[in-house]
Amino acid sequence: MSIALIILAAGKGTRMESDLPKVLHRIAHAPMLWHAMRAGQALEPARVVVVAGHEAEMVTASAQDYDPEARVVLQGEQLGTAHAVAQAAPELAEFDGDAIVLYGDTPFISQDTLEAMARARASHDVVVLGFEAADPGRYGRLVTEGDALLRIVEFKDATDEERAITLCNSGVVAADARTLFSLIEAVGNDNAAGEYYLPDIVAIARERGLSAGVVHCAEAETLGVNSRAELAGAEASFQRSARARMMEDGVTFHAPETVYLAWDTVIGRDAEVEPNVIFGSGVTIESGARIRAFSHLEGCHVSRGAIVGPFARLRPGAELAEDTHVGNFVEIKNAYLGEGAKANHLTYLGDADIGEGTNIGAGTITCNYDGVFKHRTTIGKNAFIGSDTMLVAPVTIGDGAMTGSGSVITSDVAPGALALGRAKQVDKPGFATKLFEMLRAKKATQKKD
Amino acid sequence: MSIALIILAAGKGTRMESDLPKVLHRIAHAPMLWHAMRAGQALEPARVVVVAGHEAEMVTASAQDYDPEARVVLQGEQLGTAHAVAQAAPELAEFDGDAIVLYGDTPFISQDTLEAMARARASHDVVVLGFEAADPGRYGRLVTEGDALLRIVEFKDATDEERAITLCNSGVVAADARTLFSLIEAVGNDNAAGEYYLPDIVAIARERGLSAGVVHCAEAETLGVNSRAELAGAEASFQRSARARMMEDGVTFHAPETVYLAWDTVIGRDAEVEPNVIFGSGVTIESGARIRAFSHLEGCHVSRGAIVGPFARLRPGAELAEDTHVGNFVEIKNAYLGEGAKANHLTYLGDADIGEGTNIGAGTITCNYDGVFKHRTTIGKNAFIGSDTMLVAPVTIGDGAMTGSGSVITSDVAPGALALGRAKQVDKPGFATKLFEMLRAKKATQKKD
Amino acid sequence: MSIALIILAAGKGTRMESDLPKVLHRIAHAPMLWHAMRAGQALEPARVVVVAGHEAEMVTASAQDYDPEARVVLQGEQLGTAHAVAQAAPELAEFDGDAIVLYGDTPFISQDTLEAMARARASHDVVVLGFEAADPGRYGRLVTEGDALLRIVEFKDATDEERAITLCNSGVVAADARTLFSLIEAVGNDNAAGEYYLPDIVAIARERGLSAGVVHCAEAETLGVNSRAELAGAEASFQRSARARMMEDGVTFHAPETVYLAWDTVIGRDAEVEPNVIFGSGVTIESGARIRAFSHLEGCHVSRGAIVGPFARLRPGAELAEDTHVGNFVEIKNAYLGEGAKANHLTYLGDADIGEGTNIGAGTITCNYDGVFKHRTTIGKNAFIGSDTMLVAPVTIGDGAMTGSGSVITSDVAPGALALGRAKQVDKPGFATKLFEMLRAKKATQKKD
Repeated sequence: MSIALIILAAGKGTRMESDLPKVLHRIAHAPMLWHAMRAGQALEPARVVVVAGHEAEMVTASAQDYDPEARVVLQGEQLGTAHAVAQAAPELAEFDGDAIVLYGDTPFISQDTLEAMARARASHDVVVLGFEAADPGRYGRLVTEGDALLRIVEFKDATDEERAITLCNSGVVAADARTLFSLIEAVGNDNAAGEYYLPDIVAIARERGLSAGVVHCAEAETLGVNSRAELAGAEASFQRSARARMMEDGVTFHAPETVYLAWDTVIGRDAEVEPNVIFGSGVTIESGARIRAFSHLEGCHVSRGAIVGPFARLRPGAELAEDTHVGNFVEIKNAYLGEGAKANHLTYLGDADIGEGTNIGAGTITCNYDGVFKHRTTIGKNAFIGSDTMLVAPVTIGDGAMTGSGSVITSDVAPGALALGRAKQVDKPGFATKLFEMLRAKKATQKKD
Repeated sequence: MSIALIILAAGKGTRMESDLPKVLHRIAHAPMLWHAMRAGQALEPARVVVVAGHEAEMVTASAQDYDPEARVVLQGEQLGTAHAVAQAAPELAEFDGDAIVLYGDTPFISQDTLEAMARARASHDVVVLGFEAADPGRYGRLVTEGDALLRIVEFKDATDEERAITLCNSGVVAADARTLFSLIEAVGNDNAAGEYYLPDIVAIARERGLSAGVVHCAEAETLGVNSRAELAGAEASFQRSARARMMEDGVTFHAPETVYLAWDTVIGRDAEVEPNVIFGSGVTIESGARIRAFSHLEGCHVSRGAIVGPFARLRPGAELAEDTHVGNFVEIKNAYLGEGAKANHLTYLGDADIGEGTNIGAGTITCNYDGVFKHRTTIGKNAFIGSDTMLVAPVTIGDGAMTGSGSVITSDVAPGALALGRAKQVDKPGFATKLFEMLRAKKATQKKD
Repeated sequence: MSIALIILAAGKGTRMESDLPKVLHRIAHAPMLWHAMRAGQALEPARVVVVAGHEAEMVTASAQDYDPEARVVLQGEQLGTAHAVAQAAPELAEFDGDAIVLYGDTPFISQDTLEAMARARASHDVVVLGFEAADPGRYGRLVTEGDALLRIVEFKDATDEERAITLCNSGVVAADARTLFSLIEAVGNDNAAGEYYLPDIVAIARERGLSAGVVHCAEAETLGVNSRAELAGAEASFQRSARARMMEDGVTFHAPETVYLAWDTVIGRDAEVEPNVIFGSGVTIESGARIRAFSHLEGCHVSRGAIVGPFARLRPGAELAEDTHVGNFVEIKNAYLGEGAKANHLTYLGDADIGEGTNIGAGTITCNYDGVFKHRTTIGKNAFIGSDTMLVAPVTIGDGAMTGSGSVITSDVAPGALALGRAKQVDKPGFATKLFEMLRAKKATQKKD
């Protein structure tokens, strides 16, 4: 069965108090919209249609950043969820298969749940995703008889008996695409808000003799985000699950509650992550690597046996081979460190290739920027870069070469050579004593004034 | 109605296990005493009297640091709360208006609550602040009849019926100042501890035919601090409220539970604060600025569009204009960065002015201290400071000037000039190879020994 | 009474998903095995026998690292707890006294509890440690009559009435060593798993006319670790207790929940620890020292009045005298800082001695490694090391000496002397302007291409 996803992402999210549209607020470094799109990928959809509205240009760019094939349609006015889904009709006019409606601000629907909905379509014309609410509050209630869904009642229209129902409507719906749009055409807006509500399709379907069914999921999956406090809550929820899943898979966290993972972080078995480590997107850590405290990683790869931190920053393009060490107050950007290479203190390596076994002294800096262009530094194997070496790129240091502490290296150094660029030390006996005396005398004078 | 605050701050706080008097222990970077004084400011008091005792000199200095107009009186011996209030009498002898008694170790009374107490004085001669306790434990109980307060009973003197009361005494009291002191004169110390208790004034007032009433507040407002565990609890409580309030106002926190705010932190709408950021006092962040992870800010201002961190430290006097970048392992102190200026790596800028559009290379240091005096560095617009430049202050770099990597700049550089201070690179072919051979041979010899 | 500890540490811990044996996973920087061994130290045991099995070599090394006198026996096959204890028999063949059986994956048994067990042996031949379980689940139940223990029933063999018992078996047992091994000889393996269960000794003892009794402990003490999630839970539990204990003793934590202590951390009264501080093992902090945010300390000593951080890293062998300052992005390793010495910014001091009152400028590095050997740097009192000084060790700087900013110091500097090693500043008027023009022109050309 061919499947199309329709993802509603038109809302402003007034309660977010933000200029950014709600679905672009991030959880674990990915827009909420991406989380919804990713969940839907489990169904291998033939088509993805995103319904944008508020700040549609930004939403379109983000949707197509995640999936360049995604189509985006515009909901000019926001006249309710049925109206939003209707905007997708032109993109699915020729489409032969099922449509599933998801929400850009409901990021946690699981792949298992969506697969269960797709399977349930074998038995019902319309399938609605419901959940048992701990506190049903003002959610719409699902009125069922056996496994058949009779109707969805809005809280405000519900009788006391219906309000006692705890099975609630998540809003997620699956149906044959043509059936879905045909049902939606029949939805009216004769209600207080003058909006077209998607849940109304259930009653309409039953009037037409079609069957409706319910698939159940955990309440946590249906978590929607309407305020920044709820966004922070969703982030916390994502982090808790992601950490728990990694621990089950054999990752060592000293203090999991202090580690922040991105939506796409990958960490191998028996890798060790100390407290206060932050993963941005695009990070992979191999088995047995050790990420020490207060480290910040984005877009990088850390191999087996490598030690990172404490206080290390790996930026996009950092690639650490096996048994490398990156120590405190060291920044690595767009650079490869070969097996066993070490940069342990106060260093910036940007746009560089470092050979295996090379030792980078404290205070080394790749001077990769001339104010307009960025240039590359290449260092061979088993080289020894002295402390406080400035490597003015583009520059190449050969295998087994050495630079003296405090040198500014502006031209290539041959393999096995020693390069020095430093002034000779000159000592002036007694001069420091005199200087201090002079300065202190001046200070004493100033105090008198 | 003119209002005087009387703030009791004489206690030692034995359970704090500290040499610092209790009211000077800090919550969100301000002494608890300041929190109490700040709450009272809502009433625009004509006079503030702080009753000090233990380490009175330190308490006086702190109180007058917050409010130079505050008067401090000494309670030589600590003979109870009524005795403490009585010490304020000489400072209010001529005072015509209301007095409100607050406590230096009860930092969370809200401004709304104090305003409600001031209003309630229209109906009652004595107004007491009460709260419904979840677990009334050993708190004093408020015995009421309708809206009248009959008396306050200490737990140990209470009947079973009185102990069943859940409305408890916060200790905060408001009355006409002259009435208050007159009532206090009648308070005796005929009790087990031999102390003069402020709550006794309610019974005395009623004996004199005066009326007493109760204003209610949330229990959380009356949180008192007696131990370090309670101090940590109060800090946590402050942080939770402050973060929630900021999120409502549109600040983005990825992980609010890891951000520590100061009592006076101001952050604009749509500003983004990543995990593990600490705000000391005196920080203002404009809308749309981004404070990245592991940053530490004190006494600074960050403008719209600026990016700070990760691993940045802004110290007092750091002033970042719009679209500035301050990156990893960078410290800024008492320095101004003009619009679009960047200092992205491993840098110390102290006592400096940096012009707009200027790029500060990695490893740059303003050498602002000569061992006795501090000096200032001035850099113009669109300058390019090469990596590892030492700027020996006082020194001025002109607009559009450039310094070479590894230069020590001791004299002014003209606009558009290039300043270099580096030795020429000298290469010694094969020398590194020989040196390593020699060192390794020496090591091998040592092992044999 | 002479006491022997038998510590069971043979399990693999399959659910840990790890190559490291379970008892070597760490809590607060010490293997769980050490926590169990440390608890047992309270009894001043005459002998400690560790029963190893899975990865016995690693377990042996760790046990003897903690206690070089510990004997380790091998349990070749894992045939149950009674079988494990039996392996210790040869090591205790001549032993005259009590044996107490502990578990390497049960790290929190308190010293008080073990002392209570030792005392209870005066009244009973066999003493079992029990606890009231909040949720008894599948724990073995202790069937008692008055203060006598009748038998221990496994959950699966228990009647409904026995399952209603909430007093559960911790597995910890004390008995005369000879009695214990004699009882164990009688334990059979006629059960579903074919294993020899230690709890069976209670029934056997009673058949022989011996008495058995129960000592009670808090459930938290019996916390066992079987998965990484439980390990993280145990770590969290350790941290909570350790922080609370320190606060009772007068340590100031701004945000105790963000401070991670090691099993052996010592912090004095009125020391202040800001948020996000991590203590590795071997750290002692004196009263009145201040550890600022984002600091990482291991194997070091910080004296009264010293200020560390924010963003400071103290590595093993760092020893800070009174009133020293170690500031941001500073790493100290195997180095002594004399009274009042300061290293406030971007510095690496390794293998060094710094005299009292000396100021280390920003960007200073001890070049302690020549690629093969490590060397020492010695600096006298009241010296002034200019910013970005490279101290190429071995090297000695005299009292009151000074180095110029950007100097590479390769030979000793006499007391009171000024050492400089820098090239003269050369300015090229207009050169920067021309260079930028050229680079920008090149960029413009590239864009056209």
